[in-house]
Amino acid sequence: MKVLIVGGTGTLGKHIAERLTDTHELIIAGRQSGDVQVDITDPHSIEQLYQKTGRIDALIVAAGGAPVKPLEEMIHEDFLAGFQSKMMGQINLVLTGIRYINSGGSITLTSGILTEEPIPQGAILSTINSAVNGFVKGAYGELFKKGIRINAVSPALVEDSVEKLGSLFLGHTPIPVSRAVDAYVKSLESLQTGRILEVF
Amino acid sequence: MKVLIVGGTGTLGKHIAERLTDTHELIIAGRQSGDVQVDITDPHSIEQLYQKTGRIDALIVAAGGAPVKPLEEMIHEDFLAGFQSKMMGQINLVLTGIRYINSGGSITLTSGILTEEPIPQGAILSTINSAVNGFVKGAYGELFKKGIRINAVSPALVEDSVEKLGSLFLGHTPIPVSRAVDAYVKSLESLQTGRILEVF
Repeated sequence: MKVLIVGGTGTLGKHIAERLTDTHELIIAGRQSGDVQVDITDPHSIEQLYQKTGRIDALIVAAGGAPVKPLEEMIHEDFLAGFQSKMMGQINLVLTGIRYINSGGSITLTSGILTEEPIPQGAILSTINSAVNGFVKGAYGELFKKGIRINAVSPALVEDSVEKLGSLFLGHTPIPVSRAVDAYVKSLESLQTGRILEVF
Repeated sequence: MKVLIVGGTGTLGKHIAERLTDTHELIIAGRQSGDVQVDITDPHSIEQLYQKTGRIDALIVAAGGAPVKPLEEMIHEDFLAGFQSKMMGQINLVLTGIRYINSGGSITLTSGILTEEPIPQGAILSTINSAVNGFVKGAYGELFKKGIRINAVSPALVEDSVEKLGSLFLGHTPIPVSRAVDAYVKSLESLQTGRILEVF
């Protein structure tokens, strides 16, 4: 299959790409690295990305972020940043991708554990990750009619991120990144759709 | 208690107000009607609202919407409209409200059944309602430290809306609006927090 991995040079994405590289034709998209560049916060950049890739069989997104800060310091613009990046970055890749993803293909987005296991300073990510899960549940029926599946992988903190993020996730059990990668492979190779694949 | 009901003249809000009017001091906020006016899509209008109300004991929001349309016609701006209204309208009422809601008080937001029971053309509402639920789960811990509770009521289609919306909700069982109102009262009068009160 021809698989576009957006964020394919990031913490999760590079491991997803390593796992799939021998069995699929990969196109790695990154902000500044990879085979093609894309700014997922810009719908026009997403359109240009697909014009470069042409038709694909599968889209995997492991990109996008949102601010982490105390609730009482959060302002509208912090949520807007998460909206433009992890929320609409992923959703716009789907909305535009509908015209480029072959019937029989699949889409795999990324949310995260904070929808179910909130942490202090994490309310924006809990909100944005929930929005991504909600989109998957809200959109899978209309994508099914086009022969396209969609799921989200919702990973816990991965071991590779403990040094950087562990102090925010006290009491959380980090998972090996290979377990998260398993879920992306499951979404790609199975016939599941409309699912939130939790890797906690 | 001094209770601010935003959207207190709408389909749900007017029934919530009717139920609470004999036992609480109500301030009804609406876009053009009610005791005070507010445009919840504008953070400055929200700040002005609280300057008019002064300190309150409880906030109930039954306001905000998002576009309903086929997935393949959805564009970034449709999600932005839902973001500004039902998502950030409610979240900004909380973020600003933190400075105005007394300790011991409560916040009740509104999401909806489409997070769990999606319908054709409803992907934006599934997304936005999920974001509202995610905010409640992500924020309740930091609000708890301030002595403030927060819940969301997630109603099914109410009988009063069947004429207008029933054709979109085929196979859904409409609920009496009084059942939805019960959940707002439960959130207001109980000690529950961080909960999504589903009325399906």
